Amino acid sequence: MKVSIDRSALLAAIQNVQRSVSTKTTIPVLSGIKLSAERDTLKLTATDLETGIETGLPAHIENQQIVQIMEEGAIVLSARYLSEIVRKLPQSEVELEVKQNYLTIIRSGSSEFNLHGLHAEEFPKLPQVSGSQTFGIPAIVLKDMIRQTVPAVSSEEIRPVLTGVVAVLQEGRLRFVATDSHRLAQRIVNVEAPAELAFSNVIIPGKSLSELGRLLPDNDSLVDVVIADNQIMFKFENTQFYSRLIDGQYPDTSRIIPTSFKTRIQVGTKELLDAVDRAALIARDNDNNVVRLNIRAGQSEISSNSADVGKVTESIHFADFQGEELLIAFNAKYLIDALRVVESESITVEFTGSMSPFLIKQSDNPDYIHLILPVRIY
Amino acid sequence: MKVSIDRSALLAAIQNVQRSVSTKTTIPVLSGIKLSAERDTLKLTATDLETGIETGLPAHIENQQIVQIMEEGAIVLSARYLSEIVRKLPQSEVELEVKQNYLTIIRSGSSEFNLHGLHAEEFPKLPQVSGSQTFGIPAIVLKDMIRQTVPAVSSEEIRPVLTGVVAVLQEGRLRFVATDSHRLAQRIVNVEAPAELAFSNVIIPGKSLSELGRLLPDNDSLVDVVIADNQIMFKFENTQFYSRLIDGQYPDTSRIIPTSFKTRIQVGTKELLDAVDRAALIARDNDNNVVRLNIRAGQSEISSNSADVGKVTESIHFADFQGEELLIAFNAKYLIDALRVVESESITVEFTGSMSPFLIKQSDNPDYIHLILPVRIY
Repeated sequence: MKVSIDRSALLAAIQNVQRSVSTKTTIPVLSGIKLSAERDTLKLTATDLETGIETGLPAHIENQQIVQIMEEGAIVLSARYLSEIVRKLPQSEVELEVKQNYLTIIRSGSSEFNLHGLHAEEFPKLPQVSGSQTFGIPAIVLKDMIRQTVPAVSSEEIRPVLTGVVAVLQEGRLRFVATDSHRLAQRIVNVEAPAELAFSNVIIPGKSLSELGRLLPDNDSLVDVVIADNQIMFKFENTQFYSRLIDGQYPDTSRIIPTSFKTRIQVGTKELLDAVDRAALIARDNDNNVVRLNIRAGQSEISSNSADVGKVTESIHFADFQGEELLIAFNAKYLIDALRVVESESITVEFTGSMSPFLIKQSDNPDYIHLILPVRIY
Repeated sequence: MKVSIDRSALLAAIQNVQRSVSTKTTIPVLSGIKLSAERDTLKLTATDLETGIETGLPAHIENQQIVQIMEEGAIVLSARYLSEIVRKLPQSEVELEVKQNYLTIIRSGSSEFNLHGLHAEEFPKLPQVSGSQTFGIPAIVLKDMIRQTVPAVSSEEIRPVLTGVVAVLQEGRLRFVATDSHRLAQRIVNVEAPAELAFSNVIIPGKSLSELGRLLPDNDSLVDVVIADNQIMFKFENTQFYSRLIDGQYPDTSRIIPTSFKTRIQVGTKELLDAVDRAALIARDNDNNVVRLNIRAGQSEISSNSADVGKVTESIHFADFQGEELLIAFNAKYLIDALRVVESESITVEFTGSMSPFLIKQSDNPDYIHLILPVRIY
């Protein structure tokens, strides 16, 4: 293999695929990036067996030469060394040449590195994901769905299905749901999909979605999504992102979302977020980050106290208040997580009593909801 | 105590003194900041017994009201909670009121915190540093001296004097020297001091100087330096920074600085720094970060190799070369540290053989020098 590559394009591709490189592995080849030169494209691949990323560098991007392939071939190089070396190389052009015994020469200007590589055949093949379950979704919309649901994913492995986000497609409506059994986040969007396409119980690991979210561009270019038996693939720009799916049956969450309320408030998103964020400074010192919300017709407030540190009281003004007065306590972190990903300036919160889950809705858009279970106070 | 304070000014003062707050201490009062309101000034003080910082907030700064004192007094509050709370308070004005049992109320807009404070009398007194050994130095110059010498300070406690920078003043020339016995950094500046003022063996802890360097403003306002028996005080803007001095006799370093050479090169600072920085990528994988510099009349190069990873060769162009050809090996980190704080575009390096220390000088200014001991290669 012998190729000449634009340094910035190579660095960007390395940083893309690096998100899938195993950081803790006993299998040397998994700590590497596979580079393969075929026809006029240099392909970079990384996988930790849970996710996989493949990025192709084409010969030209907008009339600028990016890759020139003098000799086809493939090699696996240490991701850590490759990225640090390419970041520091002196010239805008990098030459990469594989010699005997996988020794790879990286040349740029006055600098020459010789790295011990590994046989490309040892590198695991990424899964072949193909099937009729295919649809398109704008990158920025998918990114939003990830941002709004992943915080509610469980971090505990006891119930593996809860470490994922469940995706359901019905009648052109794509729904993402995540819950760690203390809170639940749901986001629904309309997608362009064939009318007959429908699926349910597609459970994508939360970690995979977080990585995907960081990779996706901030624009409305279309991401192609392909779902196979135990794999999902997202295709955008020159990149393909693979993730395994989680086995098992995701619990039915539709029935736990309340449809009526006894107390309803409307409040500025930022005002409530800032208040609970301050209250959390004291709350984190008690056991469960517990803050109290005291809803009164006159003056409402959020408060928290800690025997060691002291206490905090935040007066809150509601734009609207209907129904019964209420005292409820909950984990401040859950409300902060929920409010940070709200896109509207104002939210509606619906309560059905101090021991029942309460529902946070965007005032202008019911497609994102967040449900939080209160904690008992004595 | 009851005061009203501008939030941004209070936050800046907290962040200033916080550098001296003990992070690991079993004495509760040392994890706090003392606030004391007297006449029209609010004073903030912190100390970890090694350093101490005191910042005064005056009633007005440029016609803007900063502090208004309704009732004099003093209290100690947890540095961690105080800084996080003040950072997040909603309004530009903060009211602070001490009630019974050191309970302190912090009010701003709709937010009210009650923090348990500690008796101000428990807080250690900062040393009284006064004496005739006083001189002035522009903040930016002092900052430079710190930046150029502290990297060579020893991190090992075996010889305590080497964990400090030694300051010497003679005939209006102030010299800072630091060495960890593998390398030595020296910076000399002219200061405005009384002709008869002279001192030597003033050993300031490297850690104290690092903190001071972060506090000093980036301008040429004058810093007053006062040296007492076992303390040093730096006074600038509204702040006083105290540090203890290290006991003991600093070794005489003047005789180890070579005065002649067998090989001399002149080279671009950035070119050499970039080359050794790349070579260090491979060098850090071998035992002592060792790189080799091979000086030849024709082609000179820096190289390094590691059995596991591979090797690197960097061609170097010298603007000037005099004397004998030479092969020398050294710790890449030492050269990187030295070159990062060089202010001139070009440096001169003088060698007296492959087993003798070599000297790095700024080509246009001999006031900063750095000496590095080579390592033996077989």
